[in-house]
Amino acid sequence: MLAQLTTLSRRVGLRCFNVLKCWVEELAMWHETYLKAVLRPDYVYASEHLLPHLFDALTAHSLMLDTCGVAHAGKAAELLRQLRREPFPEYDPRVEDVFFTIDQALAARDAAAAGALRTALSRNDLDMTIYRLSARQRLMRAMARVLGLRQVLLDLSGQEIETVIVAYTHHQPAQPTTLAHYLTAVENNLARDTDRFFGSLSRLNLSPMGAVALGGTSFPINRDTTARLLGFDRPVENTYDAVSASDWQVELASVITIMSTTLSRTLHDLLFWASRGLIVLEDGLVQGSSVMPQKRNPVALEHARTKFSKAIGGAQSVILSSHNVPFGDINDPGPDMQPPLNSMWQDFREGVELLSASLCHPTINRAKWLREAKRGESPVTELADAITRKTGCGFRDAHALVKNLLDDLHDRDRTVDTLTLADLQRIGVNMSETELATALNPSDFIARRTTFGGPAPSVMREEIAAAVARLRQDTARHEQLTRHFVAARQHLEGGSA
Amino acid sequence: MLAQLTTLSRRVGLRCFNVLKCWVEELAMWHETYLKAVLRPDYVYASEHLLPHLFDALTAHSLMLDTCGVAHAGKAAELLRQLRREPFPEYDPRVEDVFFTIDQALAARDAAAAGALRTALSRNDLDMTIYRLSARQRLMRAMARVLGLRQVLLDLSGQEIETVIVAYTHHQPAQPTTLAHYLTAVENNLARDTDRFFGSLSRLNLSPMGAVALGGTSFPINRDTTARLLGFDRPVENTYDAVSASDWQVELASVITIMSTTLSRTLHDLLFWASRGLIVLEDGLVQGSSVMPQKRNPVALEHARTKFSKAIGGAQSVILSSHNVPFGDINDPGPDMQPPLNSMWQDFREGVELLSASLCHPTINRAKWLREAKRGESPVTELADAITRKTGCGFRDAHALVKNLLDDLHDRDRTVDTLTLADLQRIGVNMSETELATALNPSDFIARRTTFGGPAPSVMREEIAAAVARLRQDTARHEQLTRHFVAARQHLEGGSA
Amino acid sequence: MLAQLTTLSRRVGLRCFNVLKCWVEELAMWHETYLKAVLRPDYVYASEHLLPHLFDALTAHSLMLDTCGVAHAGKAAELLRQLRREPFPEYDPRVEDVFFTIDQALAARDAAAAGALRTALSRNDLDMTIYRLSARQRLMRAMARVLGLRQVLLDLSGQEIETVIVAYTHHQPAQPTTLAHYLTAVENNLARDTDRFFGSLSRLNLSPMGAVALGGTSFPINRDTTARLLGFDRPVENTYDAVSASDWQVELASVITIMSTTLSRTLHDLLFWASRGLIVLEDGLVQGSSVMPQKRNPVALEHARTKFSKAIGGAQSVILSSHNVPFGDINDPGPDMQPPLNSMWQDFREGVELLSASLCHPTINRAKWLREAKRGESPVTELADAITRKTGCGFRDAHALVKNLLDDLHDRDRTVDTLTLADLQRIGVNMSETELATALNPSDFIARRTTFGGPAPSVMREEIAAAVARLRQDTARHEQLTRHFVAARQHLEGGSA
Amino acid sequence: MLAQLTTLSRRVGLRCFNVLKCWVEELAMWHETYLKAVLRPDYVYASEHLLPHLFDALTAHSLMLDTCGVAHAGKAAELLRQLRREPFPEYDPRVEDVFFTIDQALAARDAAAAGALRTALSRNDLDMTIYRLSARQRLMRAMARVLGLRQVLLDLSGQEIETVIVAYTHHQPAQPTTLAHYLTAVENNLARDTDRFFGSLSRLNLSPMGAVALGGTSFPINRDTTARLLGFDRPVENTYDAVSASDWQVELASVITIMSTTLSRTLHDLLFWASRGLIVLEDGLVQGSSVMPQKRNPVALEHARTKFSKAIGGAQSVILSSHNVPFGDINDPGPDMQPPLNSMWQDFREGVELLSASLCHPTINRAKWLREAKRGESPVTELADAITRKTGCGFRDAHALVKNLLDDLHDRDRTVDTLTLADLQRIGVNMSETELATALNPSDFIARRTTFGGPAPSVMREEIAAAVARLRQDTARHEQLTRHFVAARQHLEGGSA
Repeated sequence: MLAQLTTLSRRVGLRCFNVLKCWVEELAMWHETYLKAVLRPDYVYASEHLLPHLFDALTAHSLMLDTCGVAHAGKAAELLRQLRREPFPEYDPRVEDVFFTIDQALAARDAAAAGALRTALSRNDLDMTIYRLSARQRLMRAMARVLGLRQVLLDLSGQEIETVIVAYTHHQPAQPTTLAHYLTAVENNLARDTDRFFGSLSRLNLSPMGAVALGGTSFPINRDTTARLLGFDRPVENTYDAVSASDWQVELASVITIMSTTLSRTLHDLLFWASRGLIVLEDGLVQGSSVMPQKRNPVALEHARTKFSKAIGGAQSVILSSHNVPFGDINDPGPDMQPPLNSMWQDFREGVELLSASLCHPTINRAKWLREAKRGESPVTELADAITRKTGCGFRDAHALVKNLLDDLHDRDRTVDTLTLADLQRIGVNMSETELATALNPSDFIARRTTFGGPAPSVMREEIAAAVARLRQDTARHEQLTRHFVAARQHLEGGSA
Repeated sequence: MLAQLTTLSRRVGLRCFNVLKCWVEELAMWHETYLKAVLRPDYVYASEHLLPHLFDALTAHSLMLDTCGVAHAGKAAELLRQLRREPFPEYDPRVEDVFFTIDQALAARDAAAAGALRTALSRNDLDMTIYRLSARQRLMRAMARVLGLRQVLLDLSGQEIETVIVAYTHHQPAQPTTLAHYLTAVENNLARDTDRFFGSLSRLNLSPMGAVALGGTSFPINRDTTARLLGFDRPVENTYDAVSASDWQVELASVITIMSTTLSRTLHDLLFWASRGLIVLEDGLVQGSSVMPQKRNPVALEHARTKFSKAIGGAQSVILSSHNVPFGDINDPGPDMQPPLNSMWQDFREGVELLSASLCHPTINRAKWLREAKRGESPVTELADAITRKTGCGFRDAHALVKNLLDDLHDRDRTVDTLTLADLQRIGVNMSETELATALNPSDFIARRTTFGGPAPSVMREEIAAAVARLRQDTARHEQLTRHFVAARQHLEGGSA
Repeated sequence: MLAQLTTLSRRVGLRCFNVLKCWVEELAMWHETYLKAVLRPDYVYASEHLLPHLFDALTAHSLMLDTCGVAHAGKAAELLRQLRREPFPEYDPRVEDVFFTIDQALAARDAAAAGALRTALSRNDLDMTIYRLSARQRLMRAMARVLGLRQVLLDLSGQEIETVIVAYTHHQPAQPTTLAHYLTAVENNLARDTDRFFGSLSRLNLSPMGAVALGGTSFPINRDTTARLLGFDRPVENTYDAVSASDWQVELASVITIMSTTLSRTLHDLLFWASRGLIVLEDGLVQGSSVMPQKRNPVALEHARTKFSKAIGGAQSVILSSHNVPFGDINDPGPDMQPPLNSMWQDFREGVELLSASLCHPTINRAKWLREAKRGESPVTELADAITRKTGCGFRDAHALVKNLLDDLHDRDRTVDTLTLADLQRIGVNMSETELATALNPSDFIARRTTFGGPAPSVMREEIAAAVARLRQDTARHEQLTRHFVAARQHLEGGSA
Repeated sequence: MLAQLTTLSRRVGLRCFNVLKCWVEELAMWHETYLKAVLRPDYVYASEHLLPHLFDALTAHSLMLDTCGVAHAGKAAELLRQLRREPFPEYDPRVEDVFFTIDQALAARDAAAAGALRTALSRNDLDMTIYRLSARQRLMRAMARVLGLRQVLLDLSGQEIETVIVAYTHHQPAQPTTLAHYLTAVENNLARDTDRFFGSLSRLNLSPMGAVALGGTSFPINRDTTARLLGFDRPVENTYDAVSASDWQVELASVITIMSTTLSRTLHDLLFWASRGLIVLEDGLVQGSSVMPQKRNPVALEHARTKFSKAIGGAQSVILSSHNVPFGDINDPGPDMQPPLNSMWQDFREGVELLSASLCHPTINRAKWLREAKRGESPVTELADAITRKTGCGFRDAHALVKNLLDDLHDRDRTVDTLTLADLQRIGVNMSETELATALNPSDFIARRTTFGGPAPSVMREEIAAAVARLRQDTARHEQLTRHFVAARQHLEGGSA
């Protein structure tokens, strides 16, 4: 077959040869299993999720080639800008993938332009570029959701600065604090996660373009230009690294894992509160039962929990795909990992959205929470503090005294709110009525905790203000980056052209 | 019992009460299972791994209290500096843990000092502080090992700038490049990991001290002072967050996971090369067989692989311990997670050490590698490049031509090094002998790849120089931090006092 | 609203009340986020994957109720059989899920039948039943693929009983053996996995029906009847367990994990062989490169590897969803876990298919493998064995002698095939030419290894025969179960009715 | 060096040669890193955990060789029985591992016996045998703990058949049931896990001995004999499989994972109950706080949760070590995996022990639980059932009626226990006082749920009896196996000899 082909090629000229070759390749049959399990789903996935990034990368490459003087490259850019506006073809088993689909569409319009585009280009650097561009977009969107959740948390904190809750440690009532104190703690976590997002972005936003197969090229290209056109900070500095590294991908999986574990912990508490009617979700977020007429299940929170479990599970796929495989272009952290990454991002995003929705307008049962704080024993730490201050004994002894006092109360089946001055005197402590009342009042407990970072409303207001300022800063940084990436995209799309 | 005790306490005075109480507590028996499965191993672990950090935290706390005017706190600091120089007691089931062991030792020497120390202090903030200090130390040590491996990689790169290897993609010979190109790519990965280490350090190196149980305290303490004394950047800004957050721990697990996957990939390649005799480890790193006399197994690399698998497994424990548990002081990401974290750090460190040792003085079989590059087909990309340049046709057509040329050779059972000018003319390409030879010579292939980040020796030299400079910078930063932490420790130990 | 409704209900009678209520519920709005992130995707997933199982379960339930004398239940069964033949409605946000879609469709046709169907039925037991039925089907299909792969392995083994390969241990050539020996070892693994499949089936194939919400019902129903109708072995014996347990799901994830790790190891070896040209996949299973004209990448194997990594990742989601969540009806291991389970099954199945396809008609480069065995040192174990037999010294000394002999050869740059009788005499061993030749011939090496389970062709033939017999037995068992499940389905579908 | 050595060997005879060689090897220095990171810890681990299994395997091998007529093999067995009674040497860097330590000790006493022992023996089959024997022992012990926990659960169930609890679904009160119903559900899970243990045992309890390096041997040995002596069911049937397979190890990790997820779910509920004072642990299992005097933390349960998280994490190490590594003897699932496996077993065992201890003598707050059941709305499902029976309307309508009735009550701030006949009449339902009271009484609710597997005391008693019988059977089977393994051990130890 080759013999005839080459003869033919000499006769018809090199340009036509390729058309012939394609025609021959059409006859080549893929193994049905490979078609079904790999080629077709890859094409479908790429068509749905990756095309804009593919066009961006190819356009940037051709624009760069044009500035380097490669003939017909400018034409290629022009044609790519046309093609991206047209409907993308359905899967055709005779064409290997989306890249070759574009390659052939281009060749059909202008073979020279198609040929030029292939200069110093491999699917290796191209794919890695696309995956990074796609990850960048998902990352920016996820960050937007997280910034939104931080806003929701701070808004609610602002409203609940005086709302007394009982903080549990080791699954037991521990101390009174405020809902704002709790929620701001969660927001602080997410602020650190935002840092992690920015950090991972700085390691992801590097251009593999120009690495070609792995060793660069003998054509004089300019990798900086391509990087700049795509909104990347700069090129990946080693071309082998550019097509091989999966660390940025595992890092994304890691950031998602970090946040998902944190939020799974918050969900534990929210569901614990919901199970006791301390918070109640709005109607559109609860579901009933087909058999138990009374049920109003806080399913939005429950599903958020599973979304995060699934996000962590998706992250595991990413980790596993980079485990004990060669360094160098392989499919494992490449095309095969895009669908799991996609699920990971989606599960994470939906988890954050469900949580944000749940915390937008929940009903907070403040009275019930306060009742719980008052009747329970959570404020007695302050009693020990008061004894320390009053008697001058160390906290160590005061703690022991209060512990024994409680044992005594339990023996007599009394609750803490029945404590009298006489009880205290019996253990050698003299206090005024007011002092005792204050020592046992949850709100006083809180108001006194003015330590930096503590729940006292005065302190909380400052903390929230600082958190709001930081959030504003992070949001501004996020918006600036978004504008930068959008501008790059618009230029590559050809703008109003 | 309490009744008598309190009567007694009144008689003997508050100070003695505590001694009595302790005597009573001694009689309290722990459940045997709890003793064996939790208390004893926790004590043993803490004794072996955490004591210096515990003394640091307690000393810093008492020094801070002293500056805040708490009586006897200065004495407590003095006693703690004495105690830490003495042998630490063996486990005694009558004392709950290492903290109470110190507490009692202190009380035995000066009850007032012991009492003062307990002011505004909980095991919650104390433990979290200790775990962060311990993690900081492990992190700094791990980073030192990684900096060391980067040095080893760059040293070897410097020696192997001209060593031709065949780079594989998709498990097939792809293109010639140099060993330096490969190794520098790995170093570049580790440079990003070093960034990750620094990033995680900035989120870990915050002080929980002063958060007490979770809500701070009503005593006027100064969290900034304690933070500064312990070498922390600043206090964790929310006290609930301070005792609850596990994100910094999951982040450490993540950084280890990221690096371990990258290095598992490098190990895949090193073992692949070792299996073909392209690299040979030095004698002290190979093992033989009890039954196969010829075996010289590159076990150091193999064990490094497992160390990294185990490090990732350890990281999984950390992730799981923060999954679906309450936010708030719990044992899951606290004491219970310290042994798995310890294993994770150790496995990781040993993996890096084994890899570093293996790459210090390996025998590189350069001749064999070059032979492989020359006999194989990996350089033919350059032939296509050359045809593109020569004929002016696009790379797309040139690629197709070369592919068909190879098919033709295979049909005739010929290898690429037998390619002649006639073969090329048959497909319409005219080249000189020199051009053809150059196009097929792996070293020429490499020398031409002067793209930024490519393997051409001229480019590699620059890249290595840049990498060396960056490593020097990272090392300096690491050393500066080390000095900072060591100075904090020395001050808390009481220096020459 | 309720007041008017109930007044209305009294006037129009109870039957109509429900219609009115539904009309009111239509107005109830779901939160948009909940709709998008949960309800709609759940509906779509259920429509695509779960409907036949849902109809089966509902039909079995109504048939059972009918035999228990519940009025209109027979009618419900009849209507369900009709409904399942009709196109299923698109998602309508006014209806909660697929169950209520059927419920309303039924009510529209015969309210009494719809009412009867709801007797002693909850979505809790219903859902768990559906998930088990679905899992059973996926399990049976996966098992069919595994049985197929076992057949492929044994077929290829049968052809390659005499094909010499070099077995590697610790990434070094170890001993000659045959390809059949290797492949049969893999098949043996899969035979154990088939056992695991059957074991997990026995724990999965139990009926939750009749557990209702979790506590059964006060209606006199017959859980055995429903179980039998659905092809289950028997009911889950505790109704709380029935709606809560996720062990069977984690077990499925585990079996997939076990097999995926085993097959990932086989793929390592196949790719190692492919990278050296020892096996070559057929054309429809390899892909080329856009830049390297010579590439023929064994991508089918590579993708199979990733499929298994992803299958393990999917299994992680399943494990995580059952981690630290309440025992009792929850969404985590319920609806939310179905899509990850689906991905897990699909990735696993496709991995097995790609591997099976790759091993159907690979080209085995027997000559190259034999050459490698002859030139290498892998057969020298036999030389030590021969010396042991010849000299009467223990193997321990013989091993040491051969090791030193090899060191000597290496020093002189000689290969093992240059070994002479003189060399042996120098170390005190007398052998005939034939004895030496035999001791170093890989085929002789193999032929002598007639130990039970060894590679000697005579032994292998027996082993393969035994394996074929076992496979036949497993296949028969699988087919019998398939018939059983199909018959249950056909009866519930209403057969030719 | 070799030259002199061989000359020497000829002069002094073959037997002495080995001694000389060892002397030379002593000088060989291991790389310090390899020594510290691999050889020494391996030796220490093996000394502590594997020696009895190593002696068993070697003794069985030599006894088998003796029956096959290998000279001096009987003597080797005799010496091994002596050696195992002596203290095992400390680590000596000149000897590679525990095997060679024994090998040399044997050679020092009788070189011929030492030589004989090495016949048809490799560390490959030996190690795999030891790991299986060790795993068998851990498995048997873990199973004993699980059988113990099942007993504890059934004992407590027997006591709490009438204890009303409120079962939660989706984190909301759902229906009243009994504590026995819940606990038996958990026991049923563990019964299935016991099945899984037995299943995994059947695949693990196979002998690799005689596989030698991987290809068996040319010596006429009898693998059945060795298998029988070691208490194995039979030899692994393919020798390649014997030294390579890791499926049995991943299966053990899986069974532990399955159980750990189930028990993590139970712990969620126990901690939820403990947090509300419904169950209280005995004193020896709770810990206090250094700052909050009132705290009595159910730490035994909390630590149990972490133990299970860690057990799952350990299982991850096992999975990862078998992921994407070669099939064939490697260190990954071999020596390197033993410490993580050990941790996994230990964490799991301790988790089960802590849980068992917690459930031995907990205080059950029955009154509080009943109060919760009566005041809450969990029994209203029965009201709908009653309406269905009473009015003849379907459950579907009854469910809707009750739902609206509750909405009405909520609007008027009334609780369910204030429901009157008039309320029911308003929605068209006529009931007697008794009927209403019964419909709302949790105990009646339960008593009526006589469905197979339901909570009605009459049914529960039968279920518990059946569970007890099954447990007895499983225990008997476990004991029989234990006796079998102990007998094998005793024979190999040489009994009273």
